[in-house]
Amino acid sequence: MKTLKVIKIGGSIIDQPKALNEFLVKFSKIKASKILVHGGGKLASKLADQMQVEVKMIEGRRITNAETLDIITMVYAGKINKNIVSKLQQHACNAIGFTGADGNTIVSNRRPIKNIDYGFAGDIKHINTKILKLLLETNITPVFCAITHDENGQLLNTNADTIASELAIAFASIYKTELYYCFEKNGVLKDVNDDGSVIENITKENYLALLEQNIIVDGMLPKLDNCFHAIDRNVQKVCIGKPEMLFNSTFNHTTIQT
Amino acid sequence: MKTLKVIKIGGSIIDQPKALNEFLVKFSKIKASKILVHGGGKLASKLADQMQVEVKMIEGRRITNAETLDIITMVYAGKINKNIVSKLQQHACNAIGFTGADGNTIVSNRRPIKNIDYGFAGDIKHINTKILKLLLETNITPVFCAITHDENGQLLNTNADTIASELAIAFASIYKTELYYCFEKNGVLKDVNDDGSVIENITKENYLALLEQNIIVDGMLPKLDNCFHAIDRNVQKVCIGKPEMLFNSTFNHTTIQT
Repeated sequence: MKTLKVIKIGGSIIDQPKALNEFLVKFSKIKASKILVHGGGKLASKLADQMQVEVKMIEGRRITNAETLDIITMVYAGKINKNIVSKLQQHACNAIGFTGADGNTIVSNRRPIKNIDYGFAGDIKHINTKILKLLLETNITPVFCAITHDENGQLLNTNADTIASELAIAFASIYKTELYYCFEKNGVLKDVNDDGSVIENITKENYLALLEQNIIVDGMLPKLDNCFHAIDRNVQKVCIGKPEMLFNSTFNHTTIQT
Repeated sequence: MKTLKVIKIGGSIIDQPKALNEFLVKFSKIKASKILVHGGGKLASKLADQMQVEVKMIEGRRITNAETLDIITMVYAGKINKNIVSKLQQHACNAIGFTGADGNTIVSNRRPIKNIDYGFAGDIKHINTKILKLLLETNITPVFCAITHDENGQLLNTNADTIASELAIAFASIYKTELYYCFEKNGVLKDVNDDGSVIENITKENYLALLEQNIIVDGMLPKLDNCFHAIDRNVQKVCIGKPEMLFNSTFNHTTIQT
């Protein structure tokens, strides 16, 4: 079985042109089949400011009204995605940018309204691997932004971490898939202020203890949910850390294990 | 040889959501292989206004500075392209959105500075058909916006009419290609104010007479240049008219002939 690396990058790389470019140079040299998933960083909020559109957040989550969806579509699928694709081409990595609507690759349901109406937010229902597999076999690197669709003409804002884990899971039966969450820290830290305090391995057993000790909090909770979700569904390797972990096997990071 | 229809739509359709939706419903039903190319319409200028970015025009052509290129990338490759793709998916037409950077499909040179510096404007150098052919054979419909790249990491603003004609030409050796320019009039008109005065056939011979009589002026000049360029390079059929010409063979339009 061939290896497929699904690599997610977020704001800590995307918001810094120099860091992004350095990352893309190294990423383009990865020989295995690969899919890049990127978040949006701060650019969407910046554009909303310029356009004087109010960014609504409830409990730390963006509420995607129609105006915000337009902004996200412009920034994620337009500016960020196409600039990444053109930089990858420069470094001889033949990439194609995707939303979930392209090739009908990622189908979502609009999140049902319970206590909060998240607006045009989508929860992934199904991934169609056929076109992506065909492209991967032709040495194309798909680059996904955090937008999916509902098959009824509606684009939907979808969490990039979840897109990465669901893509890894969808390909786990045809590739030896590896899932990498790149962010600004060396991994999951015992002490959030000490980048040396990386927890090298997290299993379901020590995870419960880490939760009880309030070591895993805030944004790390859904990220680890995505990690365990993937490792439970035949993804072979799940790692969290700085992008350097991709290019240097001895670079400190956290590995999630069954 | 199979038929490939390359269809270009512009502002007259894109700027009107209802007209666009009606067009996409019918477009999705075209059985032949097809590529859609879209211009940008007025949305880019509207966003520039909202962002208080000055739109610079010289001799009717947009000057693409870095800020304008960002806006174009957001509007063309983001908002317009992805909304078209999601609507096509709704109508069971499996589409993938493209800039020329995606799949390295359209490579351009930045336009050299002579009297005018057009900024990040690209003139097409080469089209790579391999990935597009693979996708067309899988029943995928590529949807191109008016952006290409230079293979050195730079996106470039490129005329959508030219993208359409160059795509048609590039596929002329492997498909029976047909090129359709859809716009707001019934075709090339003898009297610009009389939509009934369609010139049904334009050949190189009567074209010269039409030029001398000042019947072909302004924006119609480069459009007809693109038409003759295509018909001279083995594109089988080149038509100008309202989108209805695609769906009703008796609908009045202009055909360009050798």
